[in-house]
Amino acid sequence: MPHSTDALSRFYAVIPAGGIGSRLWPLSRADAPKFLHDLTGSGHTLLRDTWDRLAPLAGEQRIMVVTGRAHRAAVEAQLPELADANVVLESEPRESTAAIGLAAAILNKREPGVIIGSFAADHVIKNSTVFRDAVRQAVAAADSGQIVTLGIRPTEPAIGFGYIKTGEALTIEGAPSALAVESFVEKPDLATAKMYVSSGQYLWNAGMFIARADRLLEEIGASEPTLLAGLLELADAWDTPERGIVVDRVWPNLKKIAIDYTVAEPAAAAGKLAVVPGQFDWDDVGDFASIAKIHSGGRKRDLAILGEGARVLADSSSGIVVSHTKRMIALIGVEDIVVVDTPDALLVTTSANAQRVKAVVDALKLSGSTDVL
Amino acid sequence: MPHSTDALSRFYAVIPAGGIGSRLWPLSRADAPKFLHDLTGSGHTLLRDTWDRLAPLAGEQRIMVVTGRAHRAAVEAQLPELADANVVLESEPRESTAAIGLAAAILNKREPGVIIGSFAADHVIKNSTVFRDAVRQAVAAADSGQIVTLGIRPTEPAIGFGYIKTGEALTIEGAPSALAVESFVEKPDLATAKMYVSSGQYLWNAGMFIARADRLLEEIGASEPTLLAGLLELADAWDTPERGIVVDRVWPNLKKIAIDYTVAEPAAAAGKLAVVPGQFDWDDVGDFASIAKIHSGGRKRDLAILGEGARVLADSSSGIVVSHTKRMIALIGVEDIVVVDTPDALLVTTSANAQRVKAVVDALKLSGSTDVL
Repeated sequence: MPHSTDALSRFYAVIPAGGIGSRLWPLSRADAPKFLHDLTGSGHTLLRDTWDRLAPLAGEQRIMVVTGRAHRAAVEAQLPELADANVVLESEPRESTAAIGLAAAILNKREPGVIIGSFAADHVIKNSTVFRDAVRQAVAAADSGQIVTLGIRPTEPAIGFGYIKTGEALTIEGAPSALAVESFVEKPDLATAKMYVSSGQYLWNAGMFIARADRLLEEIGASEPTLLAGLLELADAWDTPERGIVVDRVWPNLKKIAIDYTVAEPAAAAGKLAVVPGQFDWDDVGDFASIAKIHSGGRKRDLAILGEGARVLADSSSGIVVSHTKRMIALIGVEDIVVVDTPDALLVTTSANAQRVKAVVDALKLSGSTDVL
Repeated sequence: MPHSTDALSRFYAVIPAGGIGSRLWPLSRADAPKFLHDLTGSGHTLLRDTWDRLAPLAGEQRIMVVTGRAHRAAVEAQLPELADANVVLESEPRESTAAIGLAAAILNKREPGVIIGSFAADHVIKNSTVFRDAVRQAVAAADSGQIVTLGIRPTEPAIGFGYIKTGEALTIEGAPSALAVESFVEKPDLATAKMYVSSGQYLWNAGMFIARADRLLEEIGASEPTLLAGLLELADAWDTPERGIVVDRVWPNLKKIAIDYTVAEPAAAAGKLAVVPGQFDWDDVGDFASIAKIHSGGRKRDLAILGEGARVLADSSSGIVVSHTKRMIALIGVEDIVVVDTPDALLVTTSANAQRVKAVVDALKLSGSTDVL
């Protein structure tokens, strides 16, 4: 069994920075996706916070970002330390297996034996120290050949997250907390979520995966051999003058499929998936209700106000106002309200309806109102 | 008793165009008061609609407008037919007794025996023909020496209006519908309002007064002799080169008091007040809930949308959106909502809270946010 200190020196962090975050419209847009916003009041974008969380672990020369061509300039402005060789640009979005798989293939070619960890650019994590300790254990576990995920100890019976059902404790050097994963379960209803939490057996699935790149590619190949062949072809050409031609030919034809289906679920079913439980605060900031919760520090009776120079006059004691226009915003007698004020679009809804914001984006697409998407 | 046809030839309409309409903030502003807005979707401002309603009755040479100096240009742009001699400018607002009393004093000096009718610039009336028939009767009744008001037959137990308790039928030539007024009553609670409506004895008080100018001034003098003296001094100087000097000296010192207290209530108590009931649709458009009601034609299950080029995507089936910015406005899962979107200020409230909008204006004044008032 290899030494875990060696393992960490072979660690490479991958940040897939894709996804517009339709449930955060009109804040998140095609040209200003969720990861380019400061949704926590930290003063930094979610992408920058993700980088700052990973750099102490991987080193800033060992963080790769996979993003859309359209976002290259914005990403590089946020991450001036990002090396050119660590920028992977997608000509069009092809889902997470292609994005993470391409990073794995490129890095494995450059550096056989590399261990990669994939961390979304648009999640919120407090307690970075605890997070990094969990990642260190996950890296050690990954080095033993496991596909490893981080699972978050639930603090409430959330119905907006998927859950991981844990099995027996594993005995892996450097990963004392690692457990076997029995299965992944979809977002539950409230009664089921309560049962999950009280059982102590379930963790939130934060969608973070850590694995040896070769093992990850092996899993992809087992599920989707054609997709793997495409990824390897891309990786072979990546650091050559052929990159552009091969990308134009291969990338648009890759199957669009989430890594949950190609890697996580098959590996769990085969007993090759481990989870390291983490006690850190995590949120995928999936909708405005989630942002409101982050800002109120869990207190339900606070109106959260985001936006530099926001002018808000309100008697509301709950909900959230996002102000990107410096207009005076007056709220009277509205509770659990969500108001998002941007120069060309305004959203008014409630916390309870926050998940339905995506439907607006769908309707705007259908109606051809692409100017505000 | 004079002939009513003669009386109508001595009729002069007065339109007090004052009052910002604080409950309609941020639509109504100091520099864009309620009467300068199209709140009905007629394509005309309320002021213009008021003019068009009165011109067939009085003739466009016999309509006087009393307004603030700051609104002169806007008023004249709305009413190109308005004669210079019929513009009375207030250097500062001094309430309705001063405004209507000054018009009465000026007109009575120019044309002794004139009958004036005062009609707010910011009310909504449908059925103009029925309205004019009521005014004709009111003019005939006024010529007999009565102070006359129009009362609206209630269509519902409204709690936002004052009521007029009617007495016996009067027998006045040309005014077959005229009744004595027993008293004015303040805005009632719902139970009282229901009792008023079912009794058949009560009318809504629309605040419209018709009287011989000399009788009106006599009533003002009986209540407020000093105020009357000021008005007569102003009227004496009005059509002379001294106007400016006298206005600057006298106007700012006139007592601020509503005509309800100087004329209507004392005249009612003395049995000198008549009311002509009207069957026309009337609304004082006091708040956004009232605008929503006007636009939905009384149907509660319609979302009213105001504003040229408004872009609204909503699943709400009630409430009102006023769009003055052409921004995309998306509403999800909010009912009875009030959203007023202007370039520098946004209001979000509910129909039930619409009356409380004035509190926002008060709070903005207190906080020094005068740029959005």
